[in-house]
Amino acid sequence: MLGNFVYSNPTTLYFGEEAKKNLAEALKGFGKRVLLTYGGGSIKRNGIYDDVVSVLKDAGKEIVELSGVMPNPTLEKVQEGSEIVRANNIDLILAVGGGSTVDYAKAVSVTAGYDGDAWQRYWVEQADLEPSQKLTPIGVVLTMAGTGSEMNGGSVITNHDKKLKIGRGFPDEVSPRFAVMNPRYTFTVPQRQMVAGIFDTMSHIMEQYFSGDDDSTSDYIAEGLMRSLIHSSRVAIKNPEDYEARSNIMWTATWGISSIVGSGKPQDWEVHMIGHAIGAYTNATHGFTLSAVSPTYYRHMTYNETKRFARFAQVVWGINPDGKTEKQLALEGIDALASWIDEIGAANNLSSLGVTEDMFDGIADATIIAGNGYKRLDRDELISILRESM
Amino acid sequence: MLGNFVYSNPTTLYFGEEAKKNLAEALKGFGKRVLLTYGGGSIKRNGIYDDVVSVLKDAGKEIVELSGVMPNPTLEKVQEGSEIVRANNIDLILAVGGGSTVDYAKAVSVTAGYDGDAWQRYWVEQADLEPSQKLTPIGVVLTMAGTGSEMNGGSVITNHDKKLKIGRGFPDEVSPRFAVMNPRYTFTVPQRQMVAGIFDTMSHIMEQYFSGDDDSTSDYIAEGLMRSLIHSSRVAIKNPEDYEARSNIMWTATWGISSIVGSGKPQDWEVHMIGHAIGAYTNATHGFTLSAVSPTYYRHMTYNETKRFARFAQVVWGINPDGKTEKQLALEGIDALASWIDEIGAANNLSSLGVTEDMFDGIADATIIAGNGYKRLDRDELISILRESM
Repeated sequence: MLGNFVYSNPTTLYFGEEAKKNLAEALKGFGKRVLLTYGGGSIKRNGIYDDVVSVLKDAGKEIVELSGVMPNPTLEKVQEGSEIVRANNIDLILAVGGGSTVDYAKAVSVTAGYDGDAWQRYWVEQADLEPSQKLTPIGVVLTMAGTGSEMNGGSVITNHDKKLKIGRGFPDEVSPRFAVMNPRYTFTVPQRQMVAGIFDTMSHIMEQYFSGDDDSTSDYIAEGLMRSLIHSSRVAIKNPEDYEARSNIMWTATWGISSIVGSGKPQDWEVHMIGHAIGAYTNATHGFTLSAVSPTYYRHMTYNETKRFARFAQVVWGINPDGKTEKQLALEGIDALASWIDEIGAANNLSSLGVTEDMFDGIADATIIAGNGYKRLDRDELISILRESM
Repeated sequence: MLGNFVYSNPTTLYFGEEAKKNLAEALKGFGKRVLLTYGGGSIKRNGIYDDVVSVLKDAGKEIVELSGVMPNPTLEKVQEGSEIVRANNIDLILAVGGGSTVDYAKAVSVTAGYDGDAWQRYWVEQADLEPSQKLTPIGVVLTMAGTGSEMNGGSVITNHDKKLKIGRGFPDEVSPRFAVMNPRYTFTVPQRQMVAGIFDTMSHIMEQYFSGDDDSTSDYIAEGLMRSLIHSSRVAIKNPEDYEARSNIMWTATWGISSIVGSGKPQDWEVHMIGHAIGAYTNATHGFTLSAVSPTYYRHMTYNETKRFARFAQVVWGINPDGKTEKQLALEGIDALASWIDEIGAANNLSSLGVTEDMFDGIADATIIAGNGYKRLDRDELISILRESM
């Protein structure tokens, strides 16, 4: 059933190959002073940096650059960005990159206009924004598909001192005002990163989908998105430059964590909480922390949610239900998920990500602090899931 | 494949049972002078009118009323509304009703701020809005599901003098700023109207879905929406007060004609063009003009689009493909659609809607004038389709 909710979407998406033209159009209406932020410099090698800078210059913008945004953006890096935004009176933060860079831009926007202890307030207490708070608008040129951060208010930041990696879902005001989405910009992403993004998207959809046996349109949309993603992942693994497949993967990622899939539904997100905790201990690639624990986690969940997992097996994986119990069918669906993880080359165990047994207690505690999880797991079951995922 | 497109959505949706609270929230930020427009007065019998007026009064709004919006809104009625908006310096047009009332509000908003011949310019020539044109913002309290008009720029107006019923897709500025969507408000809609709305939604999705054999995420979303709609229609036919089913039908209708299903895709809309032409001659209920011609039209289309129709049969209707040719499978899918039309009690022939053979020439001509249709039919084939649909 669809519960009560409010749906709105402040982000304009410019999708397709004409990224320079689209960026020029998107920049209209924003002020002169642009903070151009990006990661490790791959955008300089693949030409995206040149595209963006030429459009910014043609539009008469003054550019302040901030590079070196890391895959798991840290609080220190956020503080550096906030100071630059304040010192330069920035009108627009332009994030060029994948989810990390976009998440980072949101954290900078939120913290630049707040004087107190932003980590404590926004990430630990998950408090509301100040009504009077100045937010610097954000634009995105997306170069990796997966997190969906280009069209929502989500932001995940890591505090290494406290060994915590925590996500926030900020309101519309923090969401990017626009995102330029050119599937060709994702062609040069290393295959390993492409696969991590694909699994991240799959996990977003699953964590909203496995939530009760009611009948909700949102779940049918989720099934469609998962079927499309699985199909396109198989094409893209063989040919990363297949525009059709890469465009579908990019579009699926955006909608996979927009509120359409979760509208009016309870949601889980426990796999993401475990994954974030693992990320704080190992700096492992986000999508792989999810793939490494998902089959085990979901096998634990089938004890409660057999019917929904049986539907998953049939509709998403096309498994024939004849002669099978609901429980058998449910487990076959999870086996299909595990086989697909192997097929596309996502991580299928935690050991390969550098997790060691001595981290279990800390990861379990960090997961519990992060909250969420629509069936609250106790510490012992969390540790069992980690052990079985090694 | 996803072609190039821009996606944006200016409408905030307040979904769920708390309609009065939601309307009060939605009204914030709009001016004092509200044009309250609605249809034949059913909202006075079912209590929705009282809900809305009490919220408007509590918010201190000045109300100007304009009732009598007909199921197929006429140009004359639009002109009446435009004059009222101008004379009263209206700040917000609040449409309380279904698609006709919402379409009407858009036509009033567009024409009130334009001095020339609005019919010729916007409906016949399909011209752009004047850049300087004043548009009165629109809000919606939705009481019927089907058209999806609550979250797009579409508006269909009938000109009886010219025997033309023509739709426009206006840009974001014309779309409703908000829509209050309470599934309970649809409980008192007569079953016949509920069914017409369900088929209208199904047709919107099909007309975007039957368009080429490429692989696009949009089509997987469309399949999910169709499966949800078919399932919920069967529940709602038996129990119109099943909140779960009615909420899914309402939500499916909104997304069925939002740009998500059609993003980056060629689109057809020929069934809608035929249906509008029939509407101009008979004043028949919109959804039934579509159900009466769809199976025939799609059987004509399978000569070109066999593969897509075979996919429709399998994925949407769950038909087993074993031992069947693609063509057989395609036709079985359309048979399943025709059976469903009978099952839910939608019109399955044109004679029952008052269409007579002497109207065929005029309906065919009006369809051709309306344009659209991604495989352009000639006059003879249009007339064959009409004859076979009798």
